[in-house]
Amino acid sequence: MARVAIIGASGYTGLELLGLFARHPGMEVTALATRQTDAPHVADVHPSLRGVFDLRLEALSPAELADRADYAFACLPHAASAAMITELLDAGLKVVDLSADYRLTDRTVYEQWYKVTHPDPDRLGHVAYGLPELYRSRVRESDLVANPGCYPTSAILALAPLLKAGLISGEGIVIDSKSGVSGAGRDPKPAFHFPECNESFTAYGVGVHRHMPEIDQVLTDAAGSGVEVLFTPHLVPMDRGILSTCYATPADGVDQDGLMSALADFYRDEPFVQVVEGLPATKHVAGTNNCHVTARLARGRAVVIAVIDNLIKGAAGAAVQNFNLMSGQEETLGLT
Amino acid sequence: MARVAIIGASGYTGLELLGLFARHPGMEVTALATRQTDAPHVADVHPSLRGVFDLRLEALSPAELADRADYAFACLPHAASAAMITELLDAGLKVVDLSADYRLTDRTVYEQWYKVTHPDPDRLGHVAYGLPELYRSRVRESDLVANPGCYPTSAILALAPLLKAGLISGEGIVIDSKSGVSGAGRDPKPAFHFPECNESFTAYGVGVHRHMPEIDQVLTDAAGSGVEVLFTPHLVPMDRGILSTCYATPADGVDQDGLMSALADFYRDEPFVQVVEGLPATKHVAGTNNCHVTARLARGRAVVIAVIDNLIKGAAGAAVQNFNLMSGQEETLGLT
Amino acid sequence: MARVAIIGASGYTGLELLGLFARHPGMEVTALATRQTDAPHVADVHPSLRGVFDLRLEALSPAELADRADYAFACLPHAASAAMITELLDAGLKVVDLSADYRLTDRTVYEQWYKVTHPDPDRLGHVAYGLPELYRSRVRESDLVANPGCYPTSAILALAPLLKAGLISGEGIVIDSKSGVSGAGRDPKPAFHFPECNESFTAYGVGVHRHMPEIDQVLTDAAGSGVEVLFTPHLVPMDRGILSTCYATPADGVDQDGLMSALADFYRDEPFVQVVEGLPATKHVAGTNNCHVTARLARGRAVVIAVIDNLIKGAAGAAVQNFNLMSGQEETLGLT
Amino acid sequence: MARVAIIGASGYTGLELLGLFARHPGMEVTALATRQTDAPHVADVHPSLRGVFDLRLEALSPAELADRADYAFACLPHAASAAMITELLDAGLKVVDLSADYRLTDRTVYEQWYKVTHPDPDRLGHVAYGLPELYRSRVRESDLVANPGCYPTSAILALAPLLKAGLISGEGIVIDSKSGVSGAGRDPKPAFHFPECNESFTAYGVGVHRHMPEIDQVLTDAAGSGVEVLFTPHLVPMDRGILSTCYATPADGVDQDGLMSALADFYRDEPFVQVVEGLPATKHVAGTNNCHVTARLARGRAVVIAVIDNLIKGAAGAAVQNFNLMSGQEETLGLT
Repeated sequence: MARVAIIGASGYTGLELLGLFARHPGMEVTALATRQTDAPHVADVHPSLRGVFDLRLEALSPAELADRADYAFACLPHAASAAMITELLDAGLKVVDLSADYRLTDRTVYEQWYKVTHPDPDRLGHVAYGLPELYRSRVRESDLVANPGCYPTSAILALAPLLKAGLISGEGIVIDSKSGVSGAGRDPKPAFHFPECNESFTAYGVGVHRHMPEIDQVLTDAAGSGVEVLFTPHLVPMDRGILSTCYATPADGVDQDGLMSALADFYRDEPFVQVVEGLPATKHVAGTNNCHVTARLARGRAVVIAVIDNLIKGAAGAAVQNFNLMSGQEETLGLT
Repeated sequence: MARVAIIGASGYTGLELLGLFARHPGMEVTALATRQTDAPHVADVHPSLRGVFDLRLEALSPAELADRADYAFACLPHAASAAMITELLDAGLKVVDLSADYRLTDRTVYEQWYKVTHPDPDRLGHVAYGLPELYRSRVRESDLVANPGCYPTSAILALAPLLKAGLISGEGIVIDSKSGVSGAGRDPKPAFHFPECNESFTAYGVGVHRHMPEIDQVLTDAAGSGVEVLFTPHLVPMDRGILSTCYATPADGVDQDGLMSALADFYRDEPFVQVVEGLPATKHVAGTNNCHVTARLARGRAVVIAVIDNLIKGAAGAAVQNFNLMSGQEETLGLT
Repeated sequence: MARVAIIGASGYTGLELLGLFARHPGMEVTALATRQTDAPHVADVHPSLRGVFDLRLEALSPAELADRADYAFACLPHAASAAMITELLDAGLKVVDLSADYRLTDRTVYEQWYKVTHPDPDRLGHVAYGLPELYRSRVRESDLVANPGCYPTSAILALAPLLKAGLISGEGIVIDSKSGVSGAGRDPKPAFHFPECNESFTAYGVGVHRHMPEIDQVLTDAAGSGVEVLFTPHLVPMDRGILSTCYATPADGVDQDGLMSALADFYRDEPFVQVVEGLPATKHVAGTNNCHVTARLARGRAVVIAVIDNLIKGAAGAAVQNFNLMSGQEETLGLT
Repeated sequence: MARVAIIGASGYTGLELLGLFARHPGMEVTALATRQTDAPHVADVHPSLRGVFDLRLEALSPAELADRADYAFACLPHAASAAMITELLDAGLKVVDLSADYRLTDRTVYEQWYKVTHPDPDRLGHVAYGLPELYRSRVRESDLVANPGCYPTSAILALAPLLKAGLISGEGIVIDSKSGVSGAGRDPKPAFHFPECNESFTAYGVGVHRHMPEIDQVLTDAAGSGVEVLFTPHLVPMDRGILSTCYATPADGVDQDGLMSALADFYRDEPFVQVVEGLPATKHVAGTNNCHVTARLARGRAVVIAVIDNLIKGAAGAAVQNFNLMSGQEETLGLT
C-alpha cells in the first residue's frame, strides 16, 4: 500500500486527485500539504469531501513529508513547484509534478515562456513526460514525472499517431481548443466571475499561450522533425472538458479511412483512448480518464478532434495513471 | 431633454442603466462618475457598450455633476450613497438612489441591519419608496426616490395586493426567493467564481438577509398592521432573474379565483405587471421591466409566485420608471 | 458475485446505475433489457460508456432475465414497471423498483395520483420503502424494494428525524424544492429544450406533483400521525442536484441547537448523511450518494435544508445501497 | 409607417423579430402568419411578449397578407419559404427571406446541398444578399432580400475586407465557428435536450454544413476568384452568440497592424461593426446588432475573430437593417 501526499491540495486539481484517491485500492492518503498555517479540515476547503476524508491540510516540510509518504503529487504554481520538488526528491520521495516545470526540455524555452529563472535547470531534459500513450516505459522507470498540460494532452493524443505514421505534415498545423472554466483554477478573477463568463464564449491567449511550446516539443518528437503549431485556446461556459479541433495537411493519397486506421492501430491496446466513429462531445468523457478521438477528411484537410476531461485525463487522472506505472501497479487501478 | 448622470457606473446596475438610457428618447447622458481617476472609456469598462456610447467615467465632484446634469442615478454602496446624495441634493440635482440607504424609514432598523451609522438620518421616513405600483403619486412629487431592492420588488408585488384586500394573513408569511448571480454584483468573490456556483444551487443568508426588514416594512404598510416575513434567498446558476415563491395563510373562504381576481384588479392598469394564468418563468421577463405574477391555492395555503428581471424591474428599469415619473414624462418611456 | 440486470437501461437512471456498477466489486452486469429490438450497443445509447462496458441492450423476457441474473433494477415507467415486476418475482429474481409503483401503500391514493389501475395491487403495503436511513431492516429482508422518489428522499431526510423527535409540528409543513433538469428524464420535450430552460427558473406542478402523497405517507409514518405537506417543485438550469428548503413550526422551546442535535443524533452512524454547519450546495454532493442537511431557526420557524444528487442518492445510488442490503453485502460497497 | 407581417412567427427568429419590432418607430406589426389553425395569442406562443403585443397568429393566405401588410419577414423552412415568397411578391409585398432559399446564386449548388428542387429557380442570382456591409446599394433597390446565414455573417465580416484588400490568400482558409444552441431552432430534439448539451461541447457537421457553400460564394465574390473554405461548426452550451475563429495565410509582408488597419478602414463608417483591440466575447454583442472583430498575426498565420449575436446580427437584426434600407428609412432605426 503506497503512502501518498498532495502538495497544494486546495485547488481543483487537488480536489480531483482526492476524489480519485478515495476509490483507489492501492494507496493511502497520508498527508495534505499547504502553505496555510491554520490547518483547515479538508472538508472545509472542499465541502464535497465531507464524510469522505477526515484529514487536515498542514504546513509540512519536505522532511516531514518524506516521513509520512512515499509518493507526492505536486500541485503548485510553476517555479514554486520545482523548488519544492528538488527537496522532495532529495528526501527520497517519488513525485508526479502537475505544474509545467519539468515538461519543457529546454531551459531557454522555459524561461522565455514562463518569465522566471528555472529553480532546477539541470534536471530539464531528463524527466519523463507523463503521457503513457507515448512514453510509458520511461514513466515506469522514473522517480519524477512531468504530468502533461491539459490542452497538450488533447492535441497530442489527436495528432501524434498521424505524425508518427507520416500521414500528415508537421507544417501548418492549427489547433483550435476549447476548455471549460475549471482549467483557469480556483482563484477568483474578473474573467471567471460567473456573470462575466456565463453565457459567453471567447478566445484568449491567441498565439501566446504557454502550452504552445509544449505541444511543439512533443509533436516534434513524434514527427522526428520540427513541428510548430498555431494554438488558439477558447473558454467555454461549462465546468470541465476540453475539445481540440486540429487541422493538418494530409500526405499525398491519404484518405479518411487511412486517418482512422492509423488512430485505431495506435490506440488498439490503450485503456484510456477510444477511437470513435461519431463526433465526440466533452460530456462523453466527463468524470473519466478517457480520451475520445476521431478524424475527418474535408476540403483536402485532415480534421482530428479529441475530447478529454481537463481535470482527469488532463490532470489528476493522468497523474494517477503515472503513479500506477511508477509504483508498479496495474495502470488502470482506481481509474475505471 | 433631461440631462442625466450615473454615479458609480462600473457595475452591473450601471451597465443596465446605460443599456436602457441608450434607447430612452427623453434624456441625454451627460456624466458618468466613478472613484477611478484614470478616466476609462465606458467601452473599456463595459465592452458591450462599444459603438453605443462614447463617454468616459470621470471622478466628478457633486458641484461638477450639478453643472452637467439635472438627474443622478446613484449606484454606490450603502452609506457611501447617502453621504454623496446629501451633497447632490444640496447642489440641486434630483436623485434616484439604487442603494439601500433611503429604503428603510427607521434609523434604528437600518443601523441594526447594515451595521453602519446612517450619514443622513433626518431624511429617513421622508423619502418615497420607488415602487410606483404602490407609491406612484409620492414618487411623482419627489426629488429623491429610494429604488427598491430586487428581492423586495418581487415579493411585494406578489403579496401587497392580497394583504391590502385582506385575502391573506400577515402572519406566518414565508418568502422563498431564487436569484441569478448578477444580483451579487460585479466584484469577483469565491462564491461567485464560475466553477463554484455553476451547476450548483444553494441557499444563503437564511433569516439574516437585509432585504427582510425592507419587505416587512412595505408589507406592513400594505396590510395596515405588523407583518414579519421569513425570507430565504437562494442562488441560481444563471445570469439574471428572480422568482419568489410566497406562502401565506388565506383568510376564511378565500379560494384561488379570489386570489387571482384580487391580483387582476390591482394590476389592471399597470403597464409593467402582468397577472398570468400559467406558472411564470424568469425567462419570460428577462430583459424587460415586467413582473409576471400568479396565485394558487394548495393544501389550504395561498402560493403566490412572481418573476422579475433583477437588473431591470429589480433595479435599473424601476429606476428609469421612477425617473420618468419624477421628470413628468410618460411612465413607460424607454421601457417598452 | 451477484449477477445483475437493468430493465430499461436507456435513460439517465440506467446510465447512472451503469456508472456505479462499473466500480462495484460485488456484482457482475449480465443483462440490459430494453423494448428496442435492434439490440444497440450500450455505448451507442450512452456514449460515455464506450470503453467501459461491452454489452448490448436486448429485448429480454422475464424468463430470459431470470436465467441470466439474480437481481434486477427496474427503470420503467409506472404501471409498466409493476406489470413486469410481478413476472420477475415469479421467475425468482430480486428486484429494486425505481418507478413509483410500490412506494405508496394505498391503492386508492396511487390510482388517484397516477391515473392508472395498479397492475399488482395486492403487494401494496407489503413492500419495503427503500430509504435505509428509516427502513434498513425491512430492506434487508426484502425480495422487492421500492426505491424512493428523488424529491421525497431530500424532504424526508430533512424532516423525519425532527418529526420523530417531536421537535416540529406535522401541520403546516412547506417543502420548497429545486431540481436539476435530469430529473425530467431523457425524452426531449419543449420545456426541457436547452434554450427554453437554460437561463431560466420556474415552478411547476404546484400542489399537484405526485411526490406529494409519497412524502405525506412517509412523514406520517415518522410522526405517528397524519402529515400533509405543501410541496412545490422548481426547475433549476443545471444537470443534477436537488435542494429542498423545508419550513415547519417548531415545538415550544425548541431552538436551533435542538434541531441540529436531533439531526446529528439521528444520523450519527449513517454513512451517507452528513449534518453540516454551513449552508449546503447541491455541488457538494454531486456525483455522490451523500445527503448534506442543516437546520436554522429563523423568525420562529424551523428551516431545514437538504441537498442530494437526484440521480444518485435520489435514484441509482439509493438503488445500489438497497441492493447491497438485500444481497447481504457491505451497505457502502461501490458507493464511496 | 410601414405595415409589416411575419410569416412563421412561432420560432426563435420570430420572437426576436417581434422584440425588435416592439421598439421600432417606423413600422406597425399588422399580421403574424402561421400554419397553426387555432389562432393562438402571441403571448401563449411567446410568454415573454405578454403585455407587449396583443396579436394572434393566424393562418393567412398571400392575398390576405398583401391586404394587411407592405413588408413580410419570412421565417419558414427552406423550399417552403421560396414557394410562399413567389406568391407574396406577386401579391405586391416586399420580402426579407430569413431562410436559405435565395442566398445561393447557383441552383445546382442549392439542390446539391439542400437536397430539394428549388421552387423558384429563375430568381436565383438576381436576389440581393442582405449583408449591407457588402451589398448595401443592392439591398436598397430590392423587393426581395436574402437574409444571410448566421455563421456566414460572422465569417464573412471577418474575412471579406482582408480578401478584398489582398492581404490574405483565398486558399486554405479554415473557419472554426462556435454557436449557442438557439441556432438549432425551437423544435425539441435529443441533441438539444438540456441534460444532453448542457455542460458539453461538441463539433457537428464537419465539412458538410450547408453554410459552407454560402461562405464560399460570398468570399469568392469578395476575393474576385475562387475561395473554398473549410468550415467547422461547434455547439456551445449557451443560448445565443457565435464566435468564428478564422485562419488564413497572409500575403507576403503583411503584419498585424496591416490586418487591423484594413479592418478599420473597411468598417470606418459602418454602424454595426466595431473593430476592437482586445479579444471579443460573444457576451459583448449579445442582444445587439453589432459585430466585434479583431485580427492577430501568430506563427505566420492571420487569425481573425468575429462575434455576433446569432439571433440579431445573424438573423432578426440583419433583417430589420435590410428592411430599413428597403423602405428608405434610417439604416439603424430601431436597432440602437
